[in-house]
Amino acid sequence: MVKTPKNYLCILGMMLFMGLMSAQELKSPNGALQLKVTLTSEGMVQYTLDLDNKEVIKPSTLGLQLKNAPSMLKGFQIEESHIKEVDEHWNPVWGKQKTVRNHYNELELRLVQPEHDNRYIRLRFRLFNDGLAFRYEFPKQKTLNYFIIEEEETEFALTGDHKIFWIPGDYDTHEYPYTTSKISEIPSKMKDATVYISAQAPIEQLAVQTPSMMKTEDGLYINIHEAALQNYAAMELNVDADNLVMSSHLVPDALGNKGYMQTNTHSPWRTIIVSDDARDILASNMIINLNEPTDYEDTSWIKPMKYIGVWWEYFVEGKSTWAYGTETNVKLDQDFGKLTPNGRHGATTQHVKDYVDFAAANGFDAVLVEGWNIGWEDWIGNWKENVFDFTTPYPDFDVEAVNKYAHDKGVRIMMHHETSASATNYERRLDRAFQFMKDYGYNSVKTGYVGQIIPRGEHHDGQWMVNHFTHVAKRAADYGIMINSHEAVRPTGLHRTYPNWLAQESARGTEFEAMGGLAPEHASILAFTRLIGGPMDYTPGIFQTDLSYYGNNKQRVNTTLVKQLAYYVTMYSPLQMAADLPENYKRFPDAFRFIKDVAVDWDNSWYLEAEPGDYVTIARKTKGKEQWFVGSMTDENSRTSKIDFGFLPEGEKYIATVYADAKDADWKENPQAYTIKEITITSKSKLKQYIAPGGGLAISITKKP
Amino acid sequence: MVKTPKNYLCILGMMLFMGLMSAQELKSPNGALQLKVTLTSEGMVQYTLDLDNKEVIKPSTLGLQLKNAPSMLKGFQIEESHIKEVDEHWNPVWGKQKTVRNHYNELELRLVQPEHDNRYIRLRFRLFNDGLAFRYEFPKQKTLNYFIIEEEETEFALTGDHKIFWIPGDYDTHEYPYTTSKISEIPSKMKDATVYISAQAPIEQLAVQTPSMMKTEDGLYINIHEAALQNYAAMELNVDADNLVMSSHLVPDALGNKGYMQTNTHSPWRTIIVSDDARDILASNMIINLNEPTDYEDTSWIKPMKYIGVWWEYFVEGKSTWAYGTETNVKLDQDFGKLTPNGRHGATTQHVKDYVDFAAANGFDAVLVEGWNIGWEDWIGNWKENVFDFTTPYPDFDVEAVNKYAHDKGVRIMMHHETSASATNYERRLDRAFQFMKDYGYNSVKTGYVGQIIPRGEHHDGQWMVNHFTHVAKRAADYGIMINSHEAVRPTGLHRTYPNWLAQESARGTEFEAMGGLAPEHASILAFTRLIGGPMDYTPGIFQTDLSYYGNNKQRVNTTLVKQLAYYVTMYSPLQMAADLPENYKRFPDAFRFIKDVAVDWDNSWYLEAEPGDYVTIARKTKGKEQWFVGSMTDENSRTSKIDFGFLPEGEKYIATVYADAKDADWKENPQAYTIKEITITSKSKLKQYIAPGGGLAISITKKP
Repeated sequence: MVKTPKNYLCILGMMLFMGLMSAQELKSPNGALQLKVTLTSEGMVQYTLDLDNKEVIKPSTLGLQLKNAPSMLKGFQIEESHIKEVDEHWNPVWGKQKTVRNHYNELELRLVQPEHDNRYIRLRFRLFNDGLAFRYEFPKQKTLNYFIIEEEETEFALTGDHKIFWIPGDYDTHEYPYTTSKISEIPSKMKDATVYISAQAPIEQLAVQTPSMMKTEDGLYINIHEAALQNYAAMELNVDADNLVMSSHLVPDALGNKGYMQTNTHSPWRTIIVSDDARDILASNMIINLNEPTDYEDTSWIKPMKYIGVWWEYFVEGKSTWAYGTETNVKLDQDFGKLTPNGRHGATTQHVKDYVDFAAANGFDAVLVEGWNIGWEDWIGNWKENVFDFTTPYPDFDVEAVNKYAHDKGVRIMMHHETSASATNYERRLDRAFQFMKDYGYNSVKTGYVGQIIPRGEHHDGQWMVNHFTHVAKRAADYGIMINSHEAVRPTGLHRTYPNWLAQESARGTEFEAMGGLAPEHASILAFTRLIGGPMDYTPGIFQTDLSYYGNNKQRVNTTLVKQLAYYVTMYSPLQMAADLPENYKRFPDAFRFIKDVAVDWDNSWYLEAEPGDYVTIARKTKGKEQWFVGSMTDENSRTSKIDFGFLPEGEKYIATVYADAKDADWKENPQAYTIKEITITSKSKLKQYIAPGGGLAISITKKP
Repeated sequence: MVKTPKNYLCILGMMLFMGLMSAQELKSPNGALQLKVTLTSEGMVQYTLDLDNKEVIKPSTLGLQLKNAPSMLKGFQIEESHIKEVDEHWNPVWGKQKTVRNHYNELELRLVQPEHDNRYIRLRFRLFNDGLAFRYEFPKQKTLNYFIIEEEETEFALTGDHKIFWIPGDYDTHEYPYTTSKISEIPSKMKDATVYISAQAPIEQLAVQTPSMMKTEDGLYINIHEAALQNYAAMELNVDADNLVMSSHLVPDALGNKGYMQTNTHSPWRTIIVSDDARDILASNMIINLNEPTDYEDTSWIKPMKYIGVWWEYFVEGKSTWAYGTETNVKLDQDFGKLTPNGRHGATTQHVKDYVDFAAANGFDAVLVEGWNIGWEDWIGNWKENVFDFTTPYPDFDVEAVNKYAHDKGVRIMMHHETSASATNYERRLDRAFQFMKDYGYNSVKTGYVGQIIPRGEHHDGQWMVNHFTHVAKRAADYGIMINSHEAVRPTGLHRTYPNWLAQESARGTEFEAMGGLAPEHASILAFTRLIGGPMDYTPGIFQTDLSYYGNNKQRVNTTLVKQLAYYVTMYSPLQMAADLPENYKRFPDAFRFIKDVAVDWDNSWYLEAEPGDYVTIARKTKGKEQWFVGSMTDENSRTSKIDFGFLPEGEKYIATVYADAKDADWKENPQAYTIKEITITSKSKLKQYIAPGGGLAISITKKP
């Protein structure tokens, strides 16, 4: 499916005098975006980005500060310049669409520092129709083999005091609620924005995280992120709120160093997606296009899936616990076998079999089981290295029996590897843990990294952990295992390269609904931020939103029931959980039907309505099937969604089953009021549908028989 | 073989008022050593140690400083006190003697801090006839589960300005040459003592390493070290040269923390071996007695061994290289297969087969092969994580063929795992590396940790690496693999617990003879320092001591040839290398016979003559055989050794083959001048034998037929 580039332009020059090649220009394939790269009189590299002759990024410096070595910030000469166009199509193993177009113009510059033994780097810029990407490349050369990055000094100079959807810069967590403000307001709002999260490391200077979603006063949407983060620290953004300049801030290691580099390598791509239509931000394939194709020889074992799990009950007052024992100080090698049962252990053989029955009866692929293995008594908050062994079940969980029971019913058990952020312990035991999974027939694992990282002083988003996460993904592939990582570095499209890395959490997800709640606008911001990097295991599907239902729990999920359905379409993931207790699905079988029906892999997607922080409406076609789904979600305000069914093939009639908030539905007062109706439509149909405050809309569509 | 303790005294008291139990006393089984433990008015714990009523250690404080928690330094009350005597015998898997006696009186104190929720610790003291050991114990308790050690504050207040044999305190290396001085002279000599070593981290304040060997003005020998270092940082010794007080200085992690503790644990033993006879220091079994017995179910696969190796030739000008390629910047996953051969690669199939032939012909158990695997082109000094994979041979090394060839001749190949101190990379690959060894029939591995540790910021002797080394030893045992670790934390008797951890380097060994040379007194200091902790892979046996023999190499080994023979007896190890090139052994077949004959496991050992820094003479009986060996080494001065053969069974005649320096032998001018003679002796015989400057003496003894 890869087409040869339509044309290939290559301009090569070797210049003797700086200045002759001091300015380079590049346009996007459609001509709308324009990049300019210039050298200052000091030999500093600067770039600007325009959209339709309107400034998007003002002159911004590029370069790096090295440790104990001359910087890569100035004294540059442009010695070579190449331009080419690439236009190709490729098919992901799974995704939002069957075929992805990768169309860009590329500018490659060779930048030499004559004062430093002609040390050189390359800058590679790619201009897509929907944005700019660039990266630093460090070729192998005599005078540059190994170096340490003190800081990357990439600037993003903004054109105004944009509206920004942001979370505080933090080396260890992305689980903050979003703040919406002007850039200039970030300083005054930072303190309140930095809510308590276990194992957090807020950046001391003013900084926010990527994907950073902005909107200009004249209606331009700008999203800054990165793509293909491998063997490099994640990038956060320093905020100069006076000058409205953002700049890269890499996550340091224990010693404050930001990258250990060996030449013949490069930075991740720095990405700026830009459009005057918010829907284009959601539709962009830039991030995934900038990642490398997978080199897995066989991907047939990788399957999108829907699952349920022994999980939400742990958040529901008094239901059950991960831990088996009452102890609060246990050691794997000493205390197993001596535990005092607390009587509320969730992951028991019988209880999991009940989940398996429900999964089998309702077409779920897998049952996640958390709390099956020894170590949960004191797993959290102790910075304990030897915390789990990943191979020893609690005495009331019969691994063999449970898996056999599940497999006989066509269901898989999803393994759970909480590491307590003790990555060293996990790596020590990884081969044994994966072999154990293989021996019992597990083919997917949810990993967790709650806590302060070990190696101590490293951070979740630093280079070492970035390498850890890719190591785990690659090693899992060797064992035929799919990964669903929680508390891992936020995604940058690596699921293209490692398609068994199905989904990640890496943001404030549904679990926080049971710990203070999420703002009704939260998901419609996530769609423009966290989800830009890749699929999220958001764990939707909570029907019993008021948790006082269970007893003394005062928590509540801040959506209507229907919005929970909409998430299966709007919060893209090839891995979708139906997170609520089976008993609640049995109470609402008609609404539950949507979760049973909804697909997890797609031929195509259409972005119908979108405004960050307000609403998102998306339609998708099931992969290989004449079946479509529409999801729409709103924030705390009600609205009327206008669905244009023009995405359906012409000339056919379809039955649309519309799951809608009832007129009196409300996320706070009346979340479980919904209506379900069937209507007949064609590609020319339009639907106006009321969505309640904190509500949603879900539609499933099939051809009329 | 474990006898029940002869008697067991237990005194238990629960005191209401501090002061009632403010002083505790304990004597060694023979009554000569006396320990006093007292509480100051502030509730600080102090101890003193006397030998025959002569002060050895003046009042010295015990305790720990914790991070973000009240200290464990004062406010203590003694709430319980127990005394008992233990006298038992046990048999090591291998060792200097077949049966070891473990005889001590023990004082156990329960120390409570009423001001801190009655938090308590235990102090356990053991008085042997040859010294004192004590440790801190942290029992599991409601008010103490997890804590971080900021510093251990154990003092050793000395009685005078002793002579001390020392190397600079350093978190990463023990490979310093020794300095002999008064304690008060340490400050002025520290700068010169801190020679350059790759990957060193000298301690900023004044500190020396353990084992710290001292001699008082009135002839008392004092050795301070530690035993059973597990899950804790190694202890260095701060030196207060004005007040003649040493104090513990634990090796920190990347964040400066010194220990992550979970109660139901304890510190290693702090040991003070003391005697007025230097031979008692060498004969002491305190360290090994303080370690836990092994819990390996089967130890029959663990065998002491003699080996040769493709190794010394790398230190000899122009001979050969570890690396295969000429490149200086390679990546495991990209550049293998593209290397440019340098033409001097040492570990080729044919070359190793030649070594195997020599090993088989001369009774060696194994051939070490260094440089067999990809990664050596840029392995050193780059702080590179992904440096070796431990499973891919260079193209000119046929793993399968070499092993088959060796096994057919009754020889094993010794694996080599240089890690470049990238412990994370090693742990990631450890199971695969060991499985590879098993697949090809390797049963031993020499590990190496040259360089700065990864996890970056950790140190060779910090808690994390201590855990790494024991992890590797235990995991190796799971695969039936014996370990010979180089650049690992210095030993503390753990070979009792992990008997497959045969030997370590952890000091300045023979390789430095090819990099500047070792002082002639060096080995006779090592016997009293490094070797107190456990066996050393000193790699003796260099016959061609003048390296200019090979060409332009100006280096020379600073011993006579005979001293190299003596090392096999004086430098105890169950793993002994014959480190020189086979061609040199062929030139001196009569002297080589001693290396072929000498044993590596023993029924008993006798320490005949000893003075640190001057000379050591030891006799040993081969395990299970009527065969004895004597070794003697001197420093730069000649001397006459007086061997009393009283260690031989009475009433028999024996033939002693005496390998001696010739009269005109000299380490500098005439190292290869030696005589070999046979004499008939009995247990009543005495031998006066001249030893040349930098020389030695080696005797093998068998029953007269």
